[in-house]
Amino acid sequence: MSKYKDVVDLALRRSLFFPSCEVYADHPAGFFDFGPFGLAIKRKIVDAWRRWFVRKERFLEIDGSVVMPADVFKASGHLTGFYDPITVCKKCGAVFRADKLLSEKAGKEFKEAQAPEVLTAAIKKFKVVCPKCKGSLSDVEKSSLMVKAFIGAGSKKEVYLRPETCQSIFLDFARLFKTMRVKLPQGVAQFGLAFRNEISPRQTLLRSIEFSQLECEVFFNPDKIDEIGGWDAVKDYKVVVQRVNDSSPSLVLVKDLVDKKIVSGKLIAYYLARVQQFFESIGLPVESMRFRELGDDERAFYAKEAFDFEVLTSVGWLELGANNYRTDHDLKNHMKLSKQDFSVVDEQSGKKFVPHVWEISLGANRIFYAVLEHAFKKEKDRVFLSLVPSLAPLDAGVFPLLKNKPELVKLAKEVYSDLIKYFDVFYDESGSVGKRYARLDEVGVPFCITVDFDSLKNKDVTVRERDSTKQKRVKIKDLCCTLGRLIHCASLEKDF
Amino acid sequence: MSKYKDVVDLALRRSLFFPSCEVYADHPAGFFDFGPFGLAIKRKIVDAWRRWFVRKERFLEIDGSVVMPADVFKASGHLTGFYDPITVCKKCGAVFRADKLLSEKAGKEFKEAQAPEVLTAAIKKFKVVCPKCKGSLSDVEKSSLMVKAFIGAGSKKEVYLRPETCQSIFLDFARLFKTMRVKLPQGVAQFGLAFRNEISPRQTLLRSIEFSQLECEVFFNPDKIDEIGGWDAVKDYKVVVQRVNDSSPSLVLVKDLVDKKIVSGKLIAYYLARVQQFFESIGLPVESMRFRELGDDERAFYAKEAFDFEVLTSVGWLELGANNYRTDHDLKNHMKLSKQDFSVVDEQSGKKFVPHVWEISLGANRIFYAVLEHAFKKEKDRVFLSLVPSLAPLDAGVFPLLKNKPELVKLAKEVYSDLIKYFDVFYDESGSVGKRYARLDEVGVPFCITVDFDSLKNKDVTVRERDSTKQKRVKIKDLCCTLGRLIHCASLEKDF
Repeated sequence: MSKYKDVVDLALRRSLFFPSCEVYADHPAGFFDFGPFGLAIKRKIVDAWRRWFVRKERFLEIDGSVVMPADVFKASGHLTGFYDPITVCKKCGAVFRADKLLSEKAGKEFKEAQAPEVLTAAIKKFKVVCPKCKGSLSDVEKSSLMVKAFIGAGSKKEVYLRPETCQSIFLDFARLFKTMRVKLPQGVAQFGLAFRNEISPRQTLLRSIEFSQLECEVFFNPDKIDEIGGWDAVKDYKVVVQRVNDSSPSLVLVKDLVDKKIVSGKLIAYYLARVQQFFESIGLPVESMRFRELGDDERAFYAKEAFDFEVLTSVGWLELGANNYRTDHDLKNHMKLSKQDFSVVDEQSGKKFVPHVWEISLGANRIFYAVLEHAFKKEKDRVFLSLVPSLAPLDAGVFPLLKNKPELVKLAKEVYSDLIKYFDVFYDESGSVGKRYARLDEVGVPFCITVDFDSLKNKDVTVRERDSTKQKRVKIKDLCCTLGRLIHCASLEKDF
Repeated sequence: MSKYKDVVDLALRRSLFFPSCEVYADHPAGFFDFGPFGLAIKRKIVDAWRRWFVRKERFLEIDGSVVMPADVFKASGHLTGFYDPITVCKKCGAVFRADKLLSEKAGKEFKEAQAPEVLTAAIKKFKVVCPKCKGSLSDVEKSSLMVKAFIGAGSKKEVYLRPETCQSIFLDFARLFKTMRVKLPQGVAQFGLAFRNEISPRQTLLRSIEFSQLECEVFFNPDKIDEIGGWDAVKDYKVVVQRVNDSSPSLVLVKDLVDKKIVSGKLIAYYLARVQQFFESIGLPVESMRFRELGDDERAFYAKEAFDFEVLTSVGWLELGANNYRTDHDLKNHMKLSKQDFSVVDEQSGKKFVPHVWEISLGANRIFYAVLEHAFKKEKDRVFLSLVPSLAPLDAGVFPLLKNKPELVKLAKEVYSDLIKYFDVFYDESGSVGKRYARLDEVGVPFCITVDFDSLKNKDVTVRERDSTKQKRVKIKDLCCTLGRLIHCASLEKDF
């Protein structure tokens, strides 16, 4: 837990993220604002996701509205089936999740999906009382995880804040298919907000009410689940999989996922590989990640097969994303309720079918947290974020060695003006150079460029690398090229 | 109006934007999804804003939560003062905005800010009846423009979807000031969602319930309203201003805004210039824009001076943004209710003060619409979007002349693979080249690159420009450089 605390302390100290409306003493828990450095890192994670999935995989990206009507969630099942079982202390009014409380107090595991009556009976059987005041607990009720809102004249029309970004994609699929000349398989992607009415939001960004998702839904012909472009490029790649009965993860060749029938087709194996590669590219270590196969009792009812992508952190294995084979479940439900036809025709066979869906649903804020925690380093006299350069909030700091030497300030500002055209650079002249390094190290800026007295003679500067703190001299005329190479090629070991 | 219709038709035909949840017959009005090309254009507008304000002006960008508690809007005045006066037909139940209906029917102008009793009396005096069924109308009531939502156990805690993005900035200012080593003047920026409970959403993106804002709040010391970096670069620039008593706009030198006391300081004049320059940079013509000074009866109660930035469109002058001198109104109100101190100390004078605020609040969806409408061109046999290249959804299309010639397809794919590393390019081989041009013209792609039989011999391609439809041959080895120059330098006249 201490590393979690370190990260949150750093986040608050440098305003990476912080509670929304914190100046008001009774602001609700579960909402966070991102400050400048935090937002820059988060945006670069989103950009990396966009390059990796939207651009490389030629997915179509949409941006759907956050507010949606009841019909959508009638069809998806959220209005009736998406709730937490809660119990309320009759004495102090504290609210608890019945399944969590029972699992802690009764010495065996209870699931949120168990019927409220079963949980109520268990509370009685195991004589569970309020952990805060020993008061007796109410019968278990369903507390909806949907956030409802009201619009229209007199605010009387009930609508919902979407609990997941995928529903927009399912609803828009038929239109995109017609107007975007789609050929299956085709992924549709979306980055956006979602809301879940957690009754006890906790662990800052890890379980908040308002959060953001990086969503991809790949639509495909189930008869052609083995047809996927790019297969040869991934088939010999090793992914980290923990099967439902395994106690630890192991490396599995992508082609073996198919050959050993761990997944039902090449398309699924391909996207598991692409997901792992994405996480590796943003600096998460393979040794700390796994695809955890979900068993029958853990999978959502719509999922034919499911793998949670998890990363090991100081708060345990943290789910960063869900990989689900949703079949034609969602499209069929929306077809039924909307009375629209979302089926398509296979060009070769002429066969009409409702596309199946492979879902890659990632949590942007959790990825952001996991990236921060894995980058967080504490050495004897300093703290730094060892972010991969492409995720750093700034590319480099530019300093004059001393601020009271006009010739150094002038040259440093010239260097800054040259670089700002191509890079996110930050000019800083206040405090000692050591303090300036420390401030940028702490938010993960990979390079600092210092103009000193030698620079005036030799037309060069010192470039200092964040992790090693090693320095080298670079000619000012070569600085753009060198910085570009350092940031995009990540071949630091050669340079520092 | 016909151009508005042309744009909406194009938007629906090519899925630039479309009604959210449209497959459900009774989806609520006022919500829109952005499809791939529309989202790409919108994102490039946001990127341009970010370069222009966050990067060039060194503003701090934040991302605040959409859901906020009641205290925030108690302090801001929205909970009591942000409503539409409505009247309901007693016979058919139709709902009308009382001020709009009266203005149409009574032959004189009524304002939404007039007391409900005054409007009720006017309805009776002018014998206004339901325009739909001639039924009699109810007394005028206040219908809140706030969208309320519910969270917590049993969904009992009332919260709000923010009606404007600026409140997050005001609340976060004190924290940013302390943790980000801020020196005034300092702008804080935010791009994000806001919600207004319009009872009759209309004109698609122009008056929707869910929308997005590009917000900047510049915090400054009111004693130093004439101290702003970069003044010399804008003082001789001409901005288009229509003063409160003028019937048409005229060009005014930025320095004259100050000298003639049209604004109360150089900081304000500077940012008016920067706003106009931003809109020019995204392709809106100076001849169709104005800063309209708002009179005493039009300004929000918190605004000491205010200029709406408007663009002439087929639906009339359209407000794309508000430029408001909000003084210390917002910070003081939040200080009072939260009992926190947001005041700062001037380093030179040692004087303690609450910063004043100059607001630049832009509507992202309206800018998107205005850009589309101004770019929309209909020629005898084609439709195209004459977007500036930096806002185009793709940089270029890459085509083989014929898809059944393997040598052309091979070379075209090679050209595509080279370009995709640096540009947003799209490979297309289906249909005639003319049809491929037409499809990309319609969504504003500025260049199409065709590989033909001469390409095989001469190692060159045809580059065709969207607006002029002129073509030139470019060597394949020079293509990256040429395309880069064409997109970023916008010196098309020299090339085509």
